[in-house]
Amino acid sequence: MKIIVIGASGTVGRAVVEELAPRHEIVTVGRSGGQVQADITKIDSVRAMFDKIGKADAVVVAAGSLHFGPLAEVTPEQLNIGLQDKLMGQVNVALVAQHHLNDGGSITLTSGIVAEQPIRYGVDASMVNAAVEGFVRGAAIELQRGVRINVVSPNVLQESMGSYGPYFIGFEAVPAARVAKAYARSVDGLQTGQVYKVF
Amino acid sequence: MKIIVIGASGTVGRAVVEELAPRHEIVTVGRSGGQVQADITKIDSVRAMFDKIGKADAVVVAAGSLHFGPLAEVTPEQLNIGLQDKLMGQVNVALVAQHHLNDGGSITLTSGIVAEQPIRYGVDASMVNAAVEGFVRGAAIELQRGVRINVVSPNVLQESMGSYGPYFIGFEAVPAARVAKAYARSVDGLQTGQVYKVF
Repeated sequence: MKIIVIGASGTVGRAVVEELAPRHEIVTVGRSGGQVQADITKIDSVRAMFDKIGKADAVVVAAGSLHFGPLAEVTPEQLNIGLQDKLMGQVNVALVAQHHLNDGGSITLTSGIVAEQPIRYGVDASMVNAAVEGFVRGAAIELQRGVRINVVSPNVLQESMGSYGPYFIGFEAVPAARVAKAYARSVDGLQTGQVYKVF
Repeated sequence: MKIIVIGASGTVGRAVVEELAPRHEIVTVGRSGGQVQADITKIDSVRAMFDKIGKADAVVVAAGSLHFGPLAEVTPEQLNIGLQDKLMGQVNVALVAQHHLNDGGSITLTSGIVAEQPIRYGVDASMVNAAVEGFVRGAAIELQRGVRINVVSPNVLQESMGSYGPYFIGFEAVPAARVAKAYARSVDGLQTGQVYKVF
């Protein structure tokens, strides 16, 4: 299959490429790196990306920013960072991909453990990751031509414990290579509307 | 207790007022009706509302708009209707209420069954309602001074079957009076971070 990996230079993205490349043709996409560039927070940029790449069988998104900070001080504008970036960025990809992917294609998005297991300073992450999962449940039943959509919800990555460790004390961090297997289940499998939890 | 009910003229809001009024002092709030007016999609309007009402022990929000329409045609702008209205409207209330309510006060928001049980044309509802629940999980662990936050997730209302019935065929519609009991559990109880499902 021909598979588009958005966020391919990130920790998860690199592991996904490594997992999928032995049996699939991969097109890497990044905001500034990758074979094709796109800013997925702008749907016109997503459309241009799909037009440039041409027909494909699957798209994986492992990209998106969130705000981290105390609830007592957070502003609506800060919470909107996650909504417009990690949520709507992925949603934009799904909205365009539904018309662009080959029949039976798949869309795989990314949420995170904080959707259901909240952490200090993580209210934007809880809200946004839960929203991504809600979008996937809602979209899965309406997609046509056999196109599927799933979401991978990873625990904190072992590779990220240097920066995020203090917020995830007691969480059993997982290696990105293990998280990548969940994306492979989504891409190579047949399920739809699933939240693949890697925790 | 002194309880602010936002969206008090809606079907759920009226039932909540009826449920709570026998044992609490109620302040009704609406966009145009109610004892106090506020547009909760604007945090300045929420601040003005709390300032006008003065100290209170609880706030209930039963207000918010969503977009309904087919996934194949939905735009990011349409999905943002729900994000900026039903989600951020309620979030704005919670962000201000955390500083304004008396110690031990409570915040009760509203999601809906479509967060976990998707329906045709309901992708915005699934996304937004799931996001409200995620916000509540994230906020509950950070609130200070004993302030609590919960969310009520109602099934489709018997009173709304005239307009929403065709989208909820097979759902066991519930009366608003039964939904109102869940708000009472949140306000008069002691739990926090809960999703009270009325379905």
